[in-house]
Parts: sequence; C-alpha cells; structure tokens
Amino acid sequence: MKPQTAKGVKDVVPEEKIIQNKVVGTLKEVFETYGFAPLETPIIERYETLAAKFAAGEDSDALKEIFKLTDQGKRKLGLRFDLTVPLARYIATNPTLKMPFKRYEIGSVFRDGPIKAGRLRQFWQCDVDTIGTSSLLADAELISILQTAFNKLKLDVVILVNNRKLLNGILEQAGIQKKEEAIIAIDKLDKIGVRGVSEELKGKGFNAKQIKTIFTFVKEGITLKELKIKVKNAEGLEGIKELEELFGYLRKMGVKKAKFEVSLARGLAYYTGMVCEVFLKSTKAKPLGRQRKSLLAKGKMQSSLAAGGRWDQMIGQFLGGNREVPAVGISFGLVPMMEALKEKEEFMEKTPTQIYVIPIKTTKESLEIVEKLRGAGIKTDFDLNGKGMSKNLQYANALGIPNVLIIGKKELQKKKVLLRDMKTGTESLLTVKQVIDKWMQKK
Amino acid sequence: MKPQTAKGVKDVVPEEKIIQNKVVGTLKEVFETYGFAPLETPIIERYETLAAKFAAGEDSDALKEIFKLTDQGKRKLGLRFDLTVPLARYIATNPTLKMPFKRYEIGSVFRDGPIKAGRLRQFWQCDVDTIGTSSLLADAELISILQTAFNKLKLDVVILVNNRKLLNGILEQAGIQKKEEAIIAIDKLDKIGVRGVSEELKGKGFNAKQIKTIFTFVKEGITLKELKIKVKNAEGLEGIKELEELFGYLRKMGVKKAKFEVSLARGLAYYTGMVCEVFLKSTKAKPLGRQRKSLLAKGKMQSSLAAGGRWDQMIGQFLGGNREVPAVGISFGLVPMMEALKEKEEFMEKTPTQIYVIPIKTTKESLEIVEKLRGAGIKTDFDLNGKGMSKNLQYANALGIPNVLIIGKKELQKKKVLLRDMKTGTESLLTVKQVIDKWMQKK
Repeated sequence: MKPQTAKGVKDVVPEEKIIQNKVVGTLKEVFETYGFAPLETPIIERYETLAAKFAAGEDSDALKEIFKLTDQGKRKLGLRFDLTVPLARYIATNPTLKMPFKRYEIGSVFRDGPIKAGRLRQFWQCDVDTIGTSSLLADAELISILQTAFNKLKLDVVILVNNRKLLNGILEQAGIQKKEEAIIAIDKLDKIGVRGVSEELKGKGFNAKQIKTIFTFVKEGITLKELKIKVKNAEGLEGIKELEELFGYLRKMGVKKAKFEVSLARGLAYYTGMVCEVFLKSTKAKPLGRQRKSLLAKGKMQSSLAAGGRWDQMIGQFLGGNREVPAVGISFGLVPMMEALKEKEEFMEKTPTQIYVIPIKTTKESLEIVEKLRGAGIKTDFDLNGKGMSKNLQYANALGIPNVLIIGKKELQKKKVLLRDMKTGTESLLTVKQVIDKWMQKK
Repeated sequence: MKPQTAKGVKDVVPEEKIIQNKVVGTLKEVFETYGFAPLETPIIERYETLAAKFAAGEDSDALKEIFKLTDQGKRKLGLRFDLTVPLARYIATNPTLKMPFKRYEIGSVFRDGPIKAGRLRQFWQCDVDTIGTSSLLADAELISILQTAFNKLKLDVVILVNNRKLLNGILEQAGIQKKEEAIIAIDKLDKIGVRGVSEELKGKGFNAKQIKTIFTFVKEGITLKELKIKVKNAEGLEGIKELEELFGYLRKMGVKKAKFEVSLARGLAYYTGMVCEVFLKSTKAKPLGRQRKSLLAKGKMQSSLAAGGRWDQMIGQFLGGNREVPAVGISFGLVPMMEALKEKEEFMEKTPTQIYVIPIKTTKESLEIVEKLRGAGIKTDFDLNGKGMSKNLQYANALGIPNVLIIGKKELQKKKVLLRDMKTGTESLLTVKQVIDKWMQKK
C-alpha cells in the first residue's frame, strides 16, 4: 500500500497553516470586538436537516454533493456543506435564544463534487451573522467588520454594496417577470461584460427593449441620486431608501471603503436586501478566488475576498412555520485571503520558530538559556540530536527560521552567546538578556 | 420535521466555546513557543489508511467504530478517529520532511461508538509530537510543555512519569511472559486498587509468587534509587537509566511538577519508553475525565488532563518497511480541561462582549462612541433595535455581559456617558476617554 490522501482533500502543511492561523486569529479578534460570540456546530448532521435546504427551493443539483453516511444504528447522516444550514438548525433547536443572536463560526465544510483548481472537497468557511433583527444597523456593523478585518490584515480592498430590492425594482421597471434569472445573468457582468450579459438575457427570452432598459440603470458610475430620479416603483425606491440609511450609518462608523455599485448582484437566490462583496484593489496573486473585472475597476483583475448580504426568509422557510426570522451575514473566503497574503510575504516559514539554538557541547547550559527565552515568550527551538554546525545551519535554513543562537564554551566563559541573522549572515556576541531585550523591542 | 442534531454529537454553544477557545489559544501559544509547527490533516482519509492501524496489531474492535463513506466515484473513505494515523500517513507521503519534525494538530475526530456521559461521536483532539529523534531531550521538552501549559491556565497539577522499559524489566524479573496483559491490569491500579489488580492478574493465569513479586516493585513512594538496587535485568536497568537522564534534563529546565511514579502504566499497547500523565491536584469538578485514585494521592480523586509517551515503533510498522521512525508525543484532554476551568470561573458568559452600549435616542452619536471603543480593542456590542432600558438591561444580563454603557442626551451634553457595572450595580459618569483608560489599566 502506498499511503496517500483521499481524492479531493489535502494536508494544510505548516507553511500554509501558519498563514491560515494568522488570518483566522485576526478574524476572531475582530468578530469579538464587534460583539459576536463563537459557536461550533457538529460536522455530522442528520441527512434530512441538510436536505431541507433544497426542499426550500435552492439548487437541488447540490443534493448529490452531500457526503452521505450512516451510523451503526443505520441512521441517515451527512457531512455539512455550509455553515448556514447548521445555523438555521441551531436557531430551530434553541427557541429561547435571546435575539438578536450574533454569532460567528469558523469550520470545515464538505462537498462531494468535481475537483477544480482551488476547489477541494473539504474546505474552511468563516461566517459571521446577526439573526433576529431587521435593523440596518446590523448590516452596517457587518460592513464595518469587513473594513476593520482587511485593514488589520493590511490588504487594500474596496467593499461594493448594493440592494436586491433596488435590483428587483429596476427589473420590474424593465418589465421582467423572471427576476432571479436576470439577476444570475447580471451577476456575471464582471466576467463576461455587457455584451455577454445581453446575449445571456436574450437567450433566456428577454427582449431587446427590456435588455436596453436594464442597462440604462445598470451602468458604470451611476449614483444613488441619479437612480432616485429614474426609479419609479415602490420596491426599487425602498431599496434606495435602505441604501441611503445604510450609507448614513457607515459614514458615522467611519467606513470609507464601502462604495455603492448597482451592478453587484450576487448569484444566490436567498438574498432579500443588502448585498456586498469585497475585492482586492490590485494583486499579482494567482486568481484562485472568484474574479471580478469590475465596471469600477475598468478591467483590472480583482480577487473576491468576502461577500454577504441580508437573507430574511431562509430561516423561516427552513423552520417551516409562519415565523419570520430576519438575518444578515457575511462570509470570508479563507483561500483567496491566504493567497493575497502570501503574495505580500517575501518568505514562507515552515515553523513559527524565531530562534534556533545550537549548543556546542553545552547541552545542559543551553537548556537553561532555552528555558529563559521561552519564558520570555520567544518561539525557540534547539538541536535535539547533537548535530554538527553545518547540518544545524542547513536545518534552520530549510525551515526558514530567521535567527540562530550559537552557544559554545568560549562564549559562555564570557557570559555571552552568538546570535546569527540567517538572512543577512551578520553575527553579534550578546548576553542572554540582550537577546531578550532585542526581541521585546521588535514586538 | 422537528429539527435536531444527529445522535451522539452536540453543538458547542457560545458559553462553552469561549472556554474552549481560551484553552486552545493557550495551548497553541505554548506549542509554538517550544518550536512546534501547526499541521492540519483532512478529516476524510482513505478507508485503507485508517484500517492499516489495526492491521498493525491494535484493538480491531475499534474498526467497527470508523464512520465509513464513499464519494460519487465509489471510493472507500472514512472519517479519522484520531490524529496519530493521519500523522503517520503524512510522514509517509512526505519522505523529504526535515527531521526532527515537530508538529501540533488540534482538530475533530470521529468514532461511531456507544454514547456514554462525556463521550461523544465527534470530539476534539489536541496532539503535539516530535518525530524522528530518539533523544530524551525531546521527551523532556514535552514534559516541560505540560508544566508550562497548565501553569498558564492556572490549573494546579502533578505530572507522573514512568518508563515502559522499567515496567517490562520488572515483569520479566517476576517471570511474566505476557507483559501487555499485565500492563493493562497494572494500569487499573488507580481505579481498583492492589486487591483488584491482584485478582485480575490471577484471573489471567499469573501465579501468586509472580503477583507478589510485581508488588515488591510497584508500590507507593518507591524511588528510582531503590529500584536501581532491586532491578536486575538489562531492559529494566535501561529504563532506569533513561528516567535518570530525563529527570536530569527536567531539573535544568525547571520542571518541578514532574514526579516519578512506578505504577503509571498507560494502557495503550504502542508505548515503547517514557510514559506520562497529568492529574489535577484537587478538584470539585464532575468526574468527566479518566479518574485516578492514585497511590500518591492517597485516595483523593483526580482528573486526568493530559497524557503521552514515546512510541518508537508505530510509524515504522505503519509504513510497512524496515525504516524505524522514533516518535514521542502528548495529547491534551480538552473536555476535562474545560471542566476544570469551569469549576474555577464564577460565571459563564454567553458572549465575549465586555461593554454593551444602550443609546437613548442617540443612535448616531452612540455609533461614533462604539467605533472608538472597538478601535481601542474593547469588545463592544450595542442595541440594534431601539429597545427600552429595562429590556436592554435584561438582554445584557441574560448574556452575562459585565458592563453596560448608557448614552443619553443629558450625559452627552456634559460630554459624558454612564458606565454601569452589572455585577455590583454601581454607576459612574465618565468621559469616553476615561472608559477606555479604565480598560487599558485592567489589561
């Protein structure tokens, strides 16, 4: 037997996991600063719970992509394919939950689908949602989270914001009944341009006048003010009113990176109000995420890093009763975020270790020094095997450890150690206290 | 359909997940300070990879407890039941890995077994292992990690340490061939006492003289020095030599909580040298973890919080070739650690939020203040719905938020806000800057 991973899944090796931990750690901190609590739902759910989403009208091709299993008691189970269905199930199984319920969840989801570049059968999702309030303050708060999170990660982004009610109003005014079909086509604008979308709309049976009307609204640089004059129906005007209120809050919150963008549609059927999506302003990163050749960006390629919107009806439909449970949420794309960060780092580290200690026949004294460095919070590793100097330097170099501390008898006689910077090769003879002080300053 | 979770799994609700995150965050930090790198292996593995462990000699009843599934391509897959097999597979699929390879992994594992109190079908494991070195420095380093981690969590523990070679030597000297059977019995000493173990050994066919001989070695308070005189065979003396070397390193590393304990056996068959286990010194916590009525503790009940040892042969056996891959590792029990911490906390919080802001007709001004608090890193939430004061206080109270900030027009005119301590009920009129300064001092 030649050992290998299962098809469509992969190990997150240390050099990747270090970056992932950085992203996840930053997101957690930001979510909690905004008053969101952590929740963990199980990876295994009852099959009927997972299938209920599709009964509620969503794309039923995806049903085949649920990993199915049974327990020894022959119960039908499945692996979760997103974090939204488990959230709806959690709301349903906890009817006394205090509303609004603000939670985040970061965890693996599974889809037994075809494998493409950047698409695996097990992948992380990272969702943050506010359940149980229609207040646009909740929408504003989530958009503020987007800005704060990407600022902390030093990724330069633009947050595009639109409203499904505005889009519905525009389509209504263009005389279009099958709004969802049109929205799915408009959502491709960044990929296939005005011509492509027009052809797709034509193919779906919309006439030339309808298509032309759509593009008098959906066009580059159009403002809310201009649309307020052109839009005549109630739902469209409601959408504009919501956007005005939302941008009012965003101004108070100092969210300057959010921009209104009428062409932002978001393909998913369940959005009911605000929709938003975050794009990296410019990147040399390989296009692993969804790409947007935005109207705004005039053809510059941009990675989609996060997206979300308001979904007021899905939980209620899922519960099956008449209860309406408003909800608004955003989802972060960990893989494209990691790709964007990798592009910025000069150097991939295979370990978080900051100092690698090489004792030269000074194991016992070195142990005490290692203990001091670790006690000061410095990530420290040391030679366990009594290897020679060149093998030790090779090891530190292969793992990308930035500093090596050489502890020989001669140095110890002077109460000193030799610190070597592995990038520049410079060496300095220091006391252990000086090494620690140097580190504290860097922090 | 009444929504519910699948049998044997449960939601980790916010008040539990907050404690879990605290434990996991501390462990990660400690592991990295000791030079261990993070690794994430997939939850889905090929079924034959998982089953290979049992082919290598381990308890094959456990084979039934693997959750089995197939993908759309009819491949046989399974959910991992521990983090050790995926680690062995990772070593096998990455033959050019630099040794020693020091990694930690924290993740969910799955067992389709009977459900008891404290035993779920999906649970977290938290493993840290050093692969590829026989040096006892690696063993010492892991025991040092145990002390540091429990110190950081402010849990008062004792770390018991023994060596399988010493136990094997003792059993050899007592004329016992089936050493693994005897070790499994000795491992129950804390639960069933000397009489219980004696009866079990008798039941396995060992004679009275053999049993008596065992207990001349395995007895309360016996020291390495005393054993060194009594033990006559090579393997036993080798075990003593290893323990002496190990405790020498531990002294240099300042690990005072580690104690030699000859009765510590650890049931698992694959240990080859050092074994260790961590017990809480005293606790009122419900006995969710494995309990040890230790010889040392004279009958005081103690929870087992972590355990480990050296397992030099399993990876080699797993790889099937002649290659020997030494390994030493420890595993933390997240559930008993969380129980021990819960016992110490006065108060379970349902959100990490530190301040809940109640605007009284001051939404827009309050937004700016919330922005400042969050900008300063204070975990802040605010009323999204314009609820009345008493409903807001109820909400903050129900979620266990320790402070409320009331922002009314009157207060704002004086450029102040009203901070209320929810435990004591005391209120103070402060500027926003004073609120932030107060927080910074607490940190």
